[in-house]
Amino acid sequence: MWLQRRITFEPRPRGIHLVTGEVLGAMPELSGFRVGMLHLLIQHTSASLTLNENASPEVRADPATWLDRAVPEGAHDWTHTLEGEDDMPAHVKAALMGPSLTLPLSHGRPALGTWQGIYLCEHRDHGGPRSLVATAWGEGG
Amino acid sequence: MWLQRRITFEPRPRGIHLVTGEVLGAMPELSGFRVGMLHLLIQHTSASLTLNENASPEVRADPATWLDRAVPEGAHDWTHTLEGEDDMPAHVKAALMGPSLTLPLSHGRPALGTWQGIYLCEHRDHGGPRSLVATAWGEGG
Amino acid sequence: MWLQRRITFEPRPRGIHLVTGEVLGAMPELSGFRVGMLHLLIQHTSASLTLNENASPEVRADPATWLDRAVPEGAHDWTHTLEGEDDMPAHVKAALMGPSLTLPLSHGRPALGTWQGIYLCEHRDHGGPRSLVATAWGEGG
Repeated sequence: MWLQRRITFEPRPRGIHLVTGEVLGAMPELSGFRVGMLHLLIQHTSASLTLNENASPEVRADPATWLDRAVPEGAHDWTHTLEGEDDMPAHVKAALMGPSLTLPLSHGRPALGTWQGIYLCEHRDHGGPRSLVATAWGEGG
Repeated sequence: MWLQRRITFEPRPRGIHLVTGEVLGAMPELSGFRVGMLHLLIQHTSASLTLNENASPEVRADPATWLDRAVPEGAHDWTHTLEGEDDMPAHVKAALMGPSLTLPLSHGRPALGTWQGIYLCEHRDHGGPRSLVATAWGEGG
Repeated sequence: MWLQRRITFEPRPRGIHLVTGEVLGAMPELSGFRVGMLHLLIQHTSASLTLNENASPEVRADPATWLDRAVPEGAHDWTHTLEGEDDMPAHVKAALMGPSLTLPLSHGRPALGTWQGIYLCEHRDHGGPRSLVATAWGEGG
């Protein structure tokens, strides 16, 4: 039992955005999987996907602050600068956070912990719309 | 052929802990998979899973030391502080290391390199027990 | 429908190397998958796999430069030093970038974004040949 679909996210400002509801809303057929897996790939190299705490908004702000400090714009040794100051740091941040998530499905939904949510990390100032490929496989019943 | 099981790890101190034996011991049916995949998700946002060298204990200590220096407690720009000094750095470290592992199965066991082991990274001082969802799928024979 | 194969990469110098063509060339049967997944695991703890931009060579150089600065050799608090100055930083970099990639297959090939390529990150000065386990599963037709 396979399901594969392209999801497009509207443009979002730089930062870390909770998208659990949007992803699951685009995949209503997940309710038919007794056991399986859900995989999400973001088809870009300056944005990423991660799991993090879905309760406190500060838990969205602080990792973004940390990334900005750890991978600064304007560092003297960036050589790839022609796409803007925010571009090369965005590629490094994207590699650190990772382009995909793989999640178990159990009784029709992702078996996440109580406090886990799916996050889109937008590392560019004006990244535009972002494409995701969502793939689910498993057994129904 | 699908197998899905919850595994609970006993509380462990902050640090990086080799858990290969514990994970495989909880999944004896893996020996029946000729080819397949094993996926592990930690259902928490302040602990993570990674592969690293299973030979030298120092290779466990040094990444933890590096993470403590790279994501320090008490940084002036953390805003989420009400759960303790170790909490917000734990969320960032968890995002950097990642919440899951996906491993190939070959002839009844994970096709790891000779020196690769599965590690639980406990990023909190007192994280308590930790829940994992282990899912395997593939072909028997 | 399952396919599993060992791929060996020739020794490469320290740095980030585009290997999309080499990986796909070793897996010609992928063209037979209508929908599915491709998983790649590097069986080493001092090299890693990532997706990044496949257009500009500087986008290969800059993340390597950043990693060298963020995880420096010769830091006073490394304790695992007997395998050389480049060894312990290599284990930390490998954990940050991750040992595996999971990619959706669609109509016979990986559903990557236009600018996404598969990269081997060699974190050692002389890492030698590197082994990959490539596993694909899905539906043909």
